[in-house]
Amino acid sequence: MKNAVVLLSGGLDSYTTANVAKSMNYTIYALSFDYRQRHNIEIQSAANIARQIGVKKHIIIPLDIFSIAGKSALTDSIAVPENRSEEDMSKDIPVTYVPARNTVFLSHALCWAETIPAYDIFIGVNAVDYSGYPDCRPEYIAAFEKMANLATKAGVEGHRITIHTPLINMKKNEIIRKGIELGCDYSLSISCYQPALNGASCGICDSCHIRKKGFKEAGIPDPTPYMES
Amino acid sequence: MKNAVVLLSGGLDSYTTANVAKSMNYTIYALSFDYRQRHNIEIQSAANIARQIGVKKHIIIPLDIFSIAGKSALTDSIAVPENRSEEDMSKDIPVTYVPARNTVFLSHALCWAETIPAYDIFIGVNAVDYSGYPDCRPEYIAAFEKMANLATKAGVEGHRITIHTPLINMKKNEIIRKGIELGCDYSLSISCYQPALNGASCGICDSCHIRKKGFKEAGIPDPTPYMES
Repeated sequence: MKNAVVLLSGGLDSYTTANVAKSMNYTIYALSFDYRQRHNIEIQSAANIARQIGVKKHIIIPLDIFSIAGKSALTDSIAVPENRSEEDMSKDIPVTYVPARNTVFLSHALCWAETIPAYDIFIGVNAVDYSGYPDCRPEYIAAFEKMANLATKAGVEGHRITIHTPLINMKKNEIIRKGIELGCDYSLSISCYQPALNGASCGICDSCHIRKKGFKEAGIPDPTPYMES
Repeated sequence: MKNAVVLLSGGLDSYTTANVAKSMNYTIYALSFDYRQRHNIEIQSAANIARQIGVKKHIIIPLDIFSIAGKSALTDSIAVPENRSEEDMSKDIPVTYVPARNTVFLSHALCWAETIPAYDIFIGVNAVDYSGYPDCRPEYIAAFEKMANLATKAGVEGHRITIHTPLINMKKNEIIRKGIELGCDYSLSISCYQPALNGASCGICDSCHIRKKGFKEAGIPDPTPYMES
């Protein structure tokens, strides 16, 4: 059994990614972050998912930098965009972009991986249902991986650190079908950027739109409790 | 005036680096970390240095990952090596190596820089008085810079993010001479990995050895209070 660090947000993509890693016979070390995100409730989802998957260890790391830096709708007093058309969603980098988020996340994963040790890191980024986030693109991941191998003792000593992105070329409906096949119970996951205190998803933010469409196109009932329904 | 984020540890190199940035007319945003390091007292040095330099803002970010991951003499119950010869110091990656430390630090700097905004990040890494740390090498810095420009909105929008390493090719005595020229008061800085509670440096760890030798070779009196003296 090989070890892998899996970034687990509590959303649909990272849940599927963790199950892909599991299906590849990795022992999973799950890593989540409490970065004072608006949708903080996702941390609870991550914990439930980690239990369902049967990970070796799950740690939740507090991060102050994103709320201090601000300038994102997920960490600052900026409204989350609602009811945007697909055209609008694909135009620019959205205000839900959190500066350097995946770089901070992957850096933490790299640190933990080196001490476990694990030479494989999984992240559920996706470049097809284009979120507009620069740090979800294949060229970014390739550059991070190259840097990671130069940054670390593991890299210097000849271990090859790999950043796995099994979902990067999949559409959301393909991800959902894959996840169901691997045993994901998506009722445990949450995608919404601005869920209600009772955990219900708004149904109108970009992330809810993409999730809803994914289930519809996959022909699979969406188990998500939405506020408007 | 352009803005720059400067990583400020409280040590001699980052102090000099900050003064180099100041001499280049950057407005300085100083960034320090409380990562439960054994030499936690350096954070106090960093605050004093930030005041002396006259930075625009200084933030100190708590980081949990290094103490959770452990496996370093700076964050775990592993002894700091003492009285090592220069030959021994140059042999391997030492146990004071903290996995992925500069990557986590620079990732935070990248996040903050993007929101300030600043497109210049300064770090006092040094590849000559070879510390054996993989994340102090020029090829690592170049790879991080490339990744940073792919990771961020700033990069996508055509701003060029630069990681400045003004000390990377300087010997310690050259750094000290440069710093004195730029107005550094090195009595404010601390290099020791295991200082006493009263702030005195041990004088026998690798970092103290390199500092002492640097002052001696520069022909400048060492203002550091050492325990054994």
